[in-house]
Amino acid sequence: MLNTLIVGASGYAGAELTAYLNRHPCMNITALAVSAQSADAGKLLSDLHPQLKGIVDLPLQPLVDVVQAAKGIDVVFLATAHEVSHDIAPVFLAAGCVVFDLSAAFRVRNASFYRQYYGFEHQHDDLLDQAVYGLAEWQSEQIKQAQLIAVPGCYPTAAQLALKPLIDQALLNLDQWPVINATSGVSGAGRKANITTSFCEISLQPYGVFTHRHHPEIVAHLGVPVIFTPHLAHFPRGILETITCRLKSGVAAQDVARAYHAAYDGKPLVRLYDQGMPALKAVIGLPFCDIGFAVQGEHLIAAAAEDNLLKGAAAQAVQCLNIRFGFPETQSLF
Amino acid sequence: MLNTLIVGASGYAGAELTAYLNRHPCMNITALAVSAQSADAGKLLSDLHPQLKGIVDLPLQPLVDVVQAAKGIDVVFLATAHEVSHDIAPVFLAAGCVVFDLSAAFRVRNASFYRQYYGFEHQHDDLLDQAVYGLAEWQSEQIKQAQLIAVPGCYPTAAQLALKPLIDQALLNLDQWPVINATSGVSGAGRKANITTSFCEISLQPYGVFTHRHHPEIVAHLGVPVIFTPHLAHFPRGILETITCRLKSGVAAQDVARAYHAAYDGKPLVRLYDQGMPALKAVIGLPFCDIGFAVQGEHLIAAAAEDNLLKGAAAQAVQCLNIRFGFPETQSLF
Amino acid sequence: MLNTLIVGASGYAGAELTAYLNRHPCMNITALAVSAQSADAGKLLSDLHPQLKGIVDLPLQPLVDVVQAAKGIDVVFLATAHEVSHDIAPVFLAAGCVVFDLSAAFRVRNASFYRQYYGFEHQHDDLLDQAVYGLAEWQSEQIKQAQLIAVPGCYPTAAQLALKPLIDQALLNLDQWPVINATSGVSGAGRKANITTSFCEISLQPYGVFTHRHHPEIVAHLGVPVIFTPHLAHFPRGILETITCRLKSGVAAQDVARAYHAAYDGKPLVRLYDQGMPALKAVIGLPFCDIGFAVQGEHLIAAAAEDNLLKGAAAQAVQCLNIRFGFPETQSLF
Amino acid sequence: MLNTLIVGASGYAGAELTAYLNRHPCMNITALAVSAQSADAGKLLSDLHPQLKGIVDLPLQPLVDVVQAAKGIDVVFLATAHEVSHDIAPVFLAAGCVVFDLSAAFRVRNASFYRQYYGFEHQHDDLLDQAVYGLAEWQSEQIKQAQLIAVPGCYPTAAQLALKPLIDQALLNLDQWPVINATSGVSGAGRKANITTSFCEISLQPYGVFTHRHHPEIVAHLGVPVIFTPHLAHFPRGILETITCRLKSGVAAQDVARAYHAAYDGKPLVRLYDQGMPALKAVIGLPFCDIGFAVQGEHLIAAAAEDNLLKGAAAQAVQCLNIRFGFPETQSLF
Repeated sequence: MLNTLIVGASGYAGAELTAYLNRHPCMNITALAVSAQSADAGKLLSDLHPQLKGIVDLPLQPLVDVVQAAKGIDVVFLATAHEVSHDIAPVFLAAGCVVFDLSAAFRVRNASFYRQYYGFEHQHDDLLDQAVYGLAEWQSEQIKQAQLIAVPGCYPTAAQLALKPLIDQALLNLDQWPVINATSGVSGAGRKANITTSFCEISLQPYGVFTHRHHPEIVAHLGVPVIFTPHLAHFPRGILETITCRLKSGVAAQDVARAYHAAYDGKPLVRLYDQGMPALKAVIGLPFCDIGFAVQGEHLIAAAAEDNLLKGAAAQAVQCLNIRFGFPETQSLF
Repeated sequence: MLNTLIVGASGYAGAELTAYLNRHPCMNITALAVSAQSADAGKLLSDLHPQLKGIVDLPLQPLVDVVQAAKGIDVVFLATAHEVSHDIAPVFLAAGCVVFDLSAAFRVRNASFYRQYYGFEHQHDDLLDQAVYGLAEWQSEQIKQAQLIAVPGCYPTAAQLALKPLIDQALLNLDQWPVINATSGVSGAGRKANITTSFCEISLQPYGVFTHRHHPEIVAHLGVPVIFTPHLAHFPRGILETITCRLKSGVAAQDVARAYHAAYDGKPLVRLYDQGMPALKAVIGLPFCDIGFAVQGEHLIAAAAEDNLLKGAAAQAVQCLNIRFGFPETQSLF
Repeated sequence: MLNTLIVGASGYAGAELTAYLNRHPCMNITALAVSAQSADAGKLLSDLHPQLKGIVDLPLQPLVDVVQAAKGIDVVFLATAHEVSHDIAPVFLAAGCVVFDLSAAFRVRNASFYRQYYGFEHQHDDLLDQAVYGLAEWQSEQIKQAQLIAVPGCYPTAAQLALKPLIDQALLNLDQWPVINATSGVSGAGRKANITTSFCEISLQPYGVFTHRHHPEIVAHLGVPVIFTPHLAHFPRGILETITCRLKSGVAAQDVARAYHAAYDGKPLVRLYDQGMPALKAVIGLPFCDIGFAVQGEHLIAAAAEDNLLKGAAAQAVQCLNIRFGFPETQSLF
Repeated sequence: MLNTLIVGASGYAGAELTAYLNRHPCMNITALAVSAQSADAGKLLSDLHPQLKGIVDLPLQPLVDVVQAAKGIDVVFLATAHEVSHDIAPVFLAAGCVVFDLSAAFRVRNASFYRQYYGFEHQHDDLLDQAVYGLAEWQSEQIKQAQLIAVPGCYPTAAQLALKPLIDQALLNLDQWPVINATSGVSGAGRKANITTSFCEISLQPYGVFTHRHHPEIVAHLGVPVIFTPHLAHFPRGILETITCRLKSGVAAQDVARAYHAAYDGKPLVRLYDQGMPALKAVIGLPFCDIGFAVQGEHLIAAAAEDNLLKGAAAQAVQCLNIRFGFPETQSLF
């Protein structure tokens, strides 16, 4: 049994993470923490997330108290603000914990990325070097050795899972940048009071066009330029990304299929569609990323669907945990 | 042409009201106002409510500026906080304006009502005496003479329209209190940042059980006790109220039908269903209250549907305006 | 390991049931069946319910084929049309199977109930006598002995769980009939093409007023008259029932709390709220029925929430299975 | 006053059209028709569309009866199946009526288009030559002279309005085909019983990839190749199209802005956004197409939003009517 601490359990991804870890046979939740100033400190997790009543009724403790009592913690999950992760990850790492960070604080080995997109100065170049990017299907060998795993963002997970096999197999004509149109449910914006995410304000709309934080994360890890246009839509959860690419001359649908199968056969959390396109409902509440595609001439349309809080956050974090510690890869995920 | 000022145009009901008045052939909108501290002051109404772009692009002015320039205003609509209405209505009344107040500030002739349910001390007993309650189908004679019209709350409008004909015709056995189960869309909670109305938090749920502010308003104007249980649901607008009553012995379905028809035949904004029950979709975006009912033995189920922002607020305010000034009752409402 | 057959796996409740049984460590799914005429025969369950892709990819077989090969089946679940259950349950019972019937075919010991509300003549009085009504929290001793378990309807489950403790403890003044206002998501209407459940037609609306099939089921098992008003709403799943009762003179909130706790402490699938009311989101995707209440004077408002497909169907069926065979009561349910 | 007949009034677009024409001061609705076999024949329009109760309570008559009594009809609207429009338009044209066809029957001057995409043989080459494509902002001169106006499809309207100014001004590098990602509400699929549009089945999903009927309509009228990927989403109405293009080298954001303003300044039903992107909520229930855009380097993202039933169908038909007969262009549209 590994003792684990979850920081930021009060958020939507944090609550999902806590539910997974709570039913994981090898994990013992030692404490749930929120930032000391949070109005939620002292409440039960199930006060905020009533679906967990009777399942996880643990209290949300102020982070400072928890850090001071961190002895004996094996594993820490950080589902908190980027700056907070940046500041506290070193403390836990120094204590020997394995850290799974669901924030962006260690995702890209480039300090200017944090300055430009997240508004803070990164202080830990050594940790940027050391962190393993937890795109689980592609990094499992590195994850097995890692002490700090930077769990990918929600949009970047689906985008990379759909594009990486094509890029790796050199199937794309990159003179034409892949066009990623992505639509996310509102939970991606986090659990907070904000007029822009209030019920009556939300409506399908592009946002962050050419400026979204996840664009440089995608580009950094794919190694190719892309156009990324996110949209917010009036549903609570799920992401669908529709990706339009130009194939190299002579590449056929079967080459695309072969690339996907080579990448994901045997990978339990990516489900390939031999025909048809994934629907959001197929993945809501589940840890999968579903991928379908169609080819016409040199044009490829691929679609990837995931639950933004699960394969896009909590489930991928637990998948990384399972890989890191040699548990079955889907342990406690469905 | 009457010159009109709309205070609180930035809210959901205020925006609907502004749209109605903007297309009203007898009304000239002089200014839109918001409270001086509002972050919305200086913006265009259509910045906040993009559906009005190109239709009403007027700026939202700080209330103080507007009051000082209030000369020549004939009609004022107050779609603002209860305390603000309480404070500024006297100013406009003293200037000779006719005031339509969509807040609760003058709805009930009982100062303790404001203390207990709205948290402020009412200072204007004279205005409470003078105000006419604008339940349009029932108060048209008084509205024609009024200078201060207190437009009813959203829940009370539907509840009273469904119950008043039955009470007036003495059809109910009131030993058993009418049970009003009401379900409202989220816009009823107003336009503001609040975790409780954020997209991912909203879910069908009873709230304010035995304590909702609209309960005493209903009771005061119906003159009979009722049980009122409001629910919030995950849709943006509309109210459905399902009302269970005990009929007096010997009262039959045709007596109920006769009472409803006597009350509402010729009333253009109440639509009676001779069979079947109203659905919310029938009234969304429209100024109607739809009423259906069924009888079995001594038991009556009535259902009333309305758009909470329209017949439950803005449309009823304009209906009162039309009655007050002798315009056709449905002018500019559909 | 018990061999099990699921008839009607293609429906919404059938698919949920199959997912539960698929992960149940003591159950072996032998076959999934649909009626022989169904256009779904021959497809994979995951073709219809893509969320199950990679989890349950079993084919849907024509019922006749399956019945002929029924040797070695220990347990049969019937999630099919009422008449079909009525006709085939005897076959499986005669073969020694334990049958869990999710249809209404054996819920009420009164042949006229089937004639009046379901439109067929019941031929099996002996089975009506033998069947145990599977309201799991209340019938566990009988379930342990039963060969035929009639799993309750979705609305009746929540209604009875909320009312039975109050009736058993004689807390209600039944001169005033309990008023049950219930709102259900669309999945309760089943998986079929129908203009009335097409996306753009659905809207919050009362239906089946005074005539719904679940009314006599509730009354038969509670033993008291009630008023039951169901509503359909524009969300896919979940039921909320708000129940208004008259308490006997002198009965206080703490008596109500005591009755609920006496009934449900130690019952893992009923969650009591000591304050506040349940929201639908607390139970979606989960096997619980959540109950809250409020008292004012002699008036009681209780609210019960459940997932209509889970505690209202599939989860309760599995809960009955677990009780029948001595497995942990919540095995594989969360 | 022009006498008008509406064929196919029972559908979603037909009902919207009827509501517009009912309030149009120059139009007199002579009859509403549905196909003779329709189960809706004999019902009131407001039986099917309860929002119209008390507004338009006209009966739906069998088409054959109406055609026989078609004398004195000035204007016919066809909101019916493509083949039906194809068959009956000639009858009305021969009788001297002006025909506005909301189906696809006369949209593209190419008989193989109908064979390949609509499954019927087009018999009226002369009418294909004669028909004017009613993209109102671009064809007003031709519309003024036309007897047969083919109102554009919902997706093609938004796509063309967003792309035409850029193509006309030669701003695009068409080596890279414009990528149109479009998301539509369910009403676009029409009013009928179908498992694929039943409430619980609908979920955000691409469909008709590379094969949708609206693709050749867009290409035929734009005169350039495009990639068009439609999606169905779980909301009742509205279309958002996000379009990614390559600009010619040296083309700047201000050139794009200039092209849009040159095309649409003075056009009342296209609203241009100088900054930000349109949200679906801005156009629901309204006759507008809203367009926004952003440029980065040689990449352009444009977004167009419309109500699929209005600017994508009924409102554009009435806009064409207004242009054809010299009424104010927005008469009765808001």
